Amino acid sequence: MSSNTRVVLREYAPEGVHSPDCFTVDHSQPIPDIKPLAKGQVLVHVSALSVDPHQRIFISPPPEKPTIKSAFRYPLGQPIFGIGVGTVAASKSTEFAVGDKVRSEGMPWQAYAILGEDQLIKLPASEGALSDHVGVYGMAAFTAYLSTVYAGKPKEGETILISAASGAVGQVAVQLAKARGLRVVGMAGSDDKVEHVKSLGADAVINYKTCGDLNAAIVEAAPEGIDIYFDNVGGEILDTALLSLNSLARVVLCGSMSTYGAAQSKLRGVLNLPSIIVKQVTLQCIYYLPHYGTQRETDFLQEMARLVEQGKMQFRVDERIGLESAPQALADLFAGKNFGKLIVKA
Amino acid sequence: MSSNTRVVLREYAPEGVHSPDCFTVDHSQPIPDIKPLAKGQVLVHVSALSVDPHQRIFISPPPEKPTIKSAFRYPLGQPIFGIGVGTVAASKSTEFAVGDKVRSEGMPWQAYAILGEDQLIKLPASEGALSDHVGVYGMAAFTAYLSTVYAGKPKEGETILISAASGAVGQVAVQLAKARGLRVVGMAGSDDKVEHVKSLGADAVINYKTCGDLNAAIVEAAPEGIDIYFDNVGGEILDTALLSLNSLARVVLCGSMSTYGAAQSKLRGVLNLPSIIVKQVTLQCIYYLPHYGTQRETDFLQEMARLVEQGKMQFRVDERIGLESAPQALADLFAGKNFGKLIVKA
Repeated sequence: MSSNTRVVLREYAPEGVHSPDCFTVDHSQPIPDIKPLAKGQVLVHVSALSVDPHQRIFISPPPEKPTIKSAFRYPLGQPIFGIGVGTVAASKSTEFAVGDKVRSEGMPWQAYAILGEDQLIKLPASEGALSDHVGVYGMAAFTAYLSTVYAGKPKEGETILISAASGAVGQVAVQLAKARGLRVVGMAGSDDKVEHVKSLGADAVINYKTCGDLNAAIVEAAPEGIDIYFDNVGGEILDTALLSLNSLARVVLCGSMSTYGAAQSKLRGVLNLPSIIVKQVTLQCIYYLPHYGTQRETDFLQEMARLVEQGKMQFRVDERIGLESAPQALADLFAGKNFGKLIVKA
Repeated sequence: MSSNTRVVLREYAPEGVHSPDCFTVDHSQPIPDIKPLAKGQVLVHVSALSVDPHQRIFISPPPEKPTIKSAFRYPLGQPIFGIGVGTVAASKSTEFAVGDKVRSEGMPWQAYAILGEDQLIKLPASEGALSDHVGVYGMAAFTAYLSTVYAGKPKEGETILISAASGAVGQVAVQLAKARGLRVVGMAGSDDKVEHVKSLGADAVINYKTCGDLNAAIVEAAPEGIDIYFDNVGGEILDTALLSLNSLARVVLCGSMSTYGAAQSKLRGVLNLPSIIVKQVTLQCIYYLPHYGTQRETDFLQEMARLVEQGKMQFRVDERIGLESAPQALADLFAGKNFGKLIVKA
């Protein structure tokens, strides 16, 4: 009997630590067959897993006095989970048949997983690679669409500033904004990432690690000011970006990679909110999940398919092969060492 | 010839200093007559001046390297200015006649002022006291309306948290929210202010200076969480309020009294923005000026007149008599020592 490889949280990750050692890859369990399935459950052969920044919160030590408002934490000793895709290998559900392609927002990081019907979305059988549903059609791209198009309300000729522009979300935002005739200014953390963002069509790209005075660099790259700032990093970069906003600018708050897992006592916090009041700025938080099943999802899938077909949507994937690679993949993402959307193929 | 009393900025106010000594009351100039008026100008006999928190920014020392994005500063040695009302005493304008009641957003703090047509709004002759236009129908009340009704999008049964609830803006927000069937939680900084806010109809009021753990106090006062947070203070109170927001909550950013004139190096900054992303919160900055002349102003004036007539709108004014009292009035506002809307009667 082969073992059911599982990525298990061994210990919580202290502030500032991005180590694969928080996880173990466990082989002690057998692959389940159809027998343990209850009515309505299916066995999924996991195919690809999305590695995402917010998972850093889930592996942080729980607060000493947790409340119902405390952020979720993965339980110790159990497989972690997240967005993933796979194929139904056995079914006691009337809705899912063997061979169906499925996506789950709570896919356990293991080779085979038992899931209920309500945890699964059926995917179209014909379209492209299954892993595209955690890639170019996945959460990160949908988040970019919601942020740039829905919350950003872009108008041709405006300027958008995009943080983490080479990342999973940022690269899509750059191309969606260019397709709408915006001046696009990206920020990225290495010279090769800067080159990549330029190759996606950005008009200017700032290496925020080497540019020196970030405010001066933004002013130079966006001489007419910023109409949309798309923030995935939080902290000091967000705070600095606020200084260059135009009147009626939109800020989209979508992630805070720079502060996840960081020591709260060492964070400076955002100081420049008072300066944007007179500018009548709106800041909108975007979280993709409640937008699934809306017209916005339909519009997103259609636009992405069209751009992909026209060769106008590059989507760089940082693909790691095998669940054995998962702990290092997580550590790399949290340390900003990925380049493109990080995916683990199971 | 009588002198034209003027409130002049003598020196910029260092961080953390709220002193009347930054100003001098000057009597060296004569009251102008009609002769110096150019075509289109009018001489206004100033009647009442609005004392407002954002004026603290205008008297802060200018940055060492000012840019076009730097906040405005009053020039030294000149009368300060702000929102005020008065009566036309002489006119070389075809639009304004002697005796007309006028409001200006740039009214000099002096007994008589020469202003251009484009700096003045004509007020209806019949309605109530002239000073009501810097009071119950003035900027602070309009700001409360825009924040609570327009940006807040209140729904009956929701909970609103209002900072500086005994202040000029907050007291109106409390009553507008109660009129819409919301649970209203106020915050204020002294026991008599707390009692005043309760007398306006608030369901719970927190004395943020004596409550100890502010987060715990908010949780207790708003057990079902916060749907609208109306912020006039910024800083740590804003940061703490973010922790209790419900999904799809609206935050209205309208002022930042706690940080105006404070030492930037001593400010902690807002740390809790990452926690609201998954809650899909929207933060909207409200600045009243561009909303004048819109349907929202009409709606505001109608609702306020109706509530005043019905005895459902108390508007506490902290009135100081004479331009000689202006320096102390400004210092009191910046130190939070006013109680209600601060107005200087000229």
